[in-house]
Amino acid sequence: MPHITLNSAEPGIRGLLRYRPETARPLSELAEVLLRGPSTLTRGERELIAAYVSALNDCRYCASAHSACAAAQLPGGMTVVEQVRADPAAAPVSAKLKALLEIAAATRDSGHAVTAEQIARARAAGATDVEIHDTVLIAAVFCMFNRYVDGLATTTPNDPAAYAAGAQQLITRGYLPPSADAARHA
Amino acid sequence: MPHITLNSAEPGIRGLLRYRPETARPLSELAEVLLRGPSTLTRGERELIAAYVSALNDCRYCASAHSACAAAQLPGGMTVVEQVRADPAAAPVSAKLKALLEIAAATRDSGHAVTAEQIARARAAGATDVEIHDTVLIAAVFCMFNRYVDGLATTTPNDPAAYAAGAQQLITRGYLPPSADAARHA
Repeated sequence: MPHITLNSAEPGIRGLLRYRPETARPLSELAEVLLRGPSTLTRGERELIAAYVSALNDCRYCASAHSACAAAQLPGGMTVVEQVRADPAAAPVSAKLKALLEIAAATRDSGHAVTAEQIARARAAGATDVEIHDTVLIAAVFCMFNRYVDGLATTTPNDPAAYAAGAQQLITRGYLPPSADAARHA
Repeated sequence: MPHITLNSAEPGIRGLLRYRPETARPLSELAEVLLRGPSTLTRGERELIAAYVSALNDCRYCASAHSACAAAQLPGGMTVVEQVRADPAAAPVSAKLKALLEIAAATRDSGHAVTAEQIARARAAGATDVEIHDTVLIAAVFCMFNRYVDGLATTTPNDPAAYAAGAQQLITRGYLPPSADAARHA
């Protein structure tokens, strides 16, 4: 049961976005820009970083939701997502993505845990400065979302099908609420 | 020296906001809504929560910047800010703010560290659901900003006067970049 009385029965971040539209707007826009905006990282790769960090933070709602989004947009599907969550170094992803996942894990521990050696490895594997920037910010953003969702004890569905259905909606419509999206295209 | 090549010599978060305007927009709006928007918590109280969490995360840039903002807007000034950073339970702040600071510290550790007892103590001291919500979100948001700022190894001024001057600008103009602000009032 959530620590505060929400105005809907929606689970996880969805209940919080509905509860406080003032903060929902920039939070949704941040997710949209980082995970779906123009980037040389694919949407699947960015969702994978979000899922990986959320799993490290033991945030079951965010890890499930973003694993489903990653699985639906990565060639290897959920098999690769699970391999990355278990052991990114051994997973069948590019050397660049492995290096970026290492930076994401360090960022999760603490900003101070990111080393010049990790950055150099990512660059040697072909990562650009913007890709390194976005990886650190995605990891940092999910350290926020994970704490927000679990710190208020929001509910977490158990059925994987619920997350798969949510992922299809996010992939089709994006992270912006319908009203913000309408305003943007007005 | 920052891990990536920024397009300015601006320190801390300021250099990152200038580097990536696409993410700067929602990040700035989030800070503006949470720290300065309508709330039953004063701006000084909200900046104090931000400063306290940033100090716990050992993010010298954010802790200094938001301590300066809190000091300029709290009756007790920097003395109270330093007392809170050293030992919030013993600091001369309200029982409600002490309870909220405890929730903020737990959120920093992990969303799972926030307990029903901490929430009950905050409520008994007069905290509303929205105040509890905003406290968790402010703490979570600074877990993000701290990791973003330190994870990319941005520069940190040493001179307290620089932070005091920055605080005056933020208090006068807010967190939105001039263009976003102009667009909003257009």
